[in-house]
Amino acid sequence: MAAARVRSGGRPTLEEVAARAGVGRGTASRVINGSPRVSSRTREAVEAAVAELGYVPNRAARALAGNRTDAIALVVPEPETRFFAEPYFSDIVRGVGAALADTDMQLLLTLVGSDRERDRLAQYLAAHRVDGVLLVSVHADDPLPDLLQQLDIPAVVSGRRSGHETLPSVDSDNYQGARGAVGHLVARGRRRIATITGPFDIYAAQCRLDGYRKAVAAAGTDGDEALVAQGDFSEESGRRAMELLLDRRPDLDAVFAASDVMAAGARQVLRERGLRVPDDVALVGFDDSVIARHMDPPLTSVRQPIEEMGRAMARLLLSEIGVHRSPGTAAAEQTQLVLPTDLVPRLSS
Amino acid sequence: MAAARVRSGGRPTLEEVAARAGVGRGTASRVINGSPRVSSRTREAVEAAVAELGYVPNRAARALAGNRTDAIALVVPEPETRFFAEPYFSDIVRGVGAALADTDMQLLLTLVGSDRERDRLAQYLAAHRVDGVLLVSVHADDPLPDLLQQLDIPAVVSGRRSGHETLPSVDSDNYQGARGAVGHLVARGRRRIATITGPFDIYAAQCRLDGYRKAVAAAGTDGDEALVAQGDFSEESGRRAMELLLDRRPDLDAVFAASDVMAAGARQVLRERGLRVPDDVALVGFDDSVIARHMDPPLTSVRQPIEEMGRAMARLLLSEIGVHRSPGTAAAEQTQLVLPTDLVPRLSS
Repeated sequence: MAAARVRSGGRPTLEEVAARAGVGRGTASRVINGSPRVSSRTREAVEAAVAELGYVPNRAARALAGNRTDAIALVVPEPETRFFAEPYFSDIVRGVGAALADTDMQLLLTLVGSDRERDRLAQYLAAHRVDGVLLVSVHADDPLPDLLQQLDIPAVVSGRRSGHETLPSVDSDNYQGARGAVGHLVARGRRRIATITGPFDIYAAQCRLDGYRKAVAAAGTDGDEALVAQGDFSEESGRRAMELLLDRRPDLDAVFAASDVMAAGARQVLRERGLRVPDDVALVGFDDSVIARHMDPPLTSVRQPIEEMGRAMARLLLSEIGVHRSPGTAAAEQTQLVLPTDLVPRLSS
Repeated sequence: MAAARVRSGGRPTLEEVAARAGVGRGTASRVINGSPRVSSRTREAVEAAVAELGYVPNRAARALAGNRTDAIALVVPEPETRFFAEPYFSDIVRGVGAALADTDMQLLLTLVGSDRERDRLAQYLAAHRVDGVLLVSVHADDPLPDLLQQLDIPAVVSGRRSGHETLPSVDSDNYQGARGAVGHLVARGRRRIATITGPFDIYAAQCRLDGYRKAVAAAGTDGDEALVAQGDFSEESGRRAMELLLDRRPDLDAVFAASDVMAAGARQVLRERGLRVPDDVALVGFDDSVIARHMDPPLTSVRQPIEEMGRAMARLLLSEIGVHRSPGTAAAEQTQLVLPTDLVPRLSS
């Protein structure tokens, strides 16, 4: 977009505007930045000077130069309902907000719940209205990451899309987290351990299943594939998967659910069928969200440092943007950050 | 910003780019809009044509012309914690999203939890990167509405800042809602009805208190000012207000809380003090949020049509933006939309 760079050099300065308007630099700046604490007379004088000199504020000038907006988008590829129901997203937003608190970066949250919304966002991004993008919990087949690379917009994903992620990413150690959860169930004497997985187009769900399988194989406990049922991280899918597992293997003695929300759905089915937790069936979740603490009994869960992941994403993106803005600098190394998980034992196991 | 209008007229068209690249218009458009489904050879040809002709995509051209971004900001003047904890906000976002679903408007959520974040947002808005702003639940002393008017950015507020709101607004009938809630308590035989108010820099909180006072006066029940305690819409403030009320007037027989969240806090204190709901103290909230249905006993509450308010805000803003974009058109009338509330009786009263 060469046209956007037309006006570099020789631009009138804020000082010149202030001088022509007969006010101080600070007053001129307040008018231009829209502060309400300015008299209408002063405002008119400054606005006249701006018009006469053809002054363009720095920030707008940078935007016209196509290389800076001081805004980043946090993109959540989910509809509103999931965004507000999943504590994961609020923790990420909190972490990102904390990391940006002392910067000039405006954070813009954008939800993408449909193909139409995805097309709209693609248009918005193609207009280069943000300096960078944080993509949260992106599915493996989502076209947005490739689009961002083509547009040369710095981006960081939370949750790798595969073991060969091409964008800088922040993830938690889903594999070891799942291994630890199943190892804990084995240590408590469980031998017929089922799992409710997440959707396989999310790499984290694959890693958690891999961790489950590895732990079952290492312990030599029952490796029957009928003990594996797929969910989609929703509560309803946890219910359905639990029903399926109990129909297939009524003798199961433990369940590792790949999210707390699915564990909550499974818990309801266990209650409906008269099975006690943990006496008859031990239950472990993943995320250590508020739900885990409020369940009856409280749910053992794998803690991901989600807020810390949000902070790390934002810091990584700021560094990518810094490199991007200084074309002379060497390209940032592709950083794949994997943060450790912990098991938080509670009464459900 | 006269400089931004430099390149109007005589711009190369998409058709010219396509012709020079030797591809169809649709293919050229896909490359320019960043679609991943294009061969790298085609991409290079189109990019070369774009560079040679100095083509600026329509959307970017509109942005450079300073009059169109196809993006609107939904501004919530609360920190992340409140944004995610208050069902009000998710309902508004859902309504706004529904109203924008069939449009080309990109919705950008922005949270403002501190003065620093408010300054940052002011800077962002001053750069005119959005076509309009939805301001949700804004406090009376917030400088953002005046800023938006000075910047001539179309804006709609949810929740009037006063009875003399100068921006287009969507609100629910807080006064009648509160009157109805207290009238209901009177009809159930309550005579010493307390209220826990919201913060008075929010006009809705004033209206709910006015409705309470009017209903108490109309019924001739106890009008002691000691029956009024102030909260800030948070659960903790509901707890504190309830403790204060019981210390002052241990004989109170009903409480109207100006939000469900504060009613939940009050409920805890009543339980701690061994008071039964509704036998000893009847309880009514406001918002009819999910909390109301899940309380024990389920909470009678005043339903606001929040999702509908979100839809109405978005529609009103789209209409304001339409007028704004056609300077020949008459200015939109200041629309103050007030939607009705309903009482939803449950076991708490």
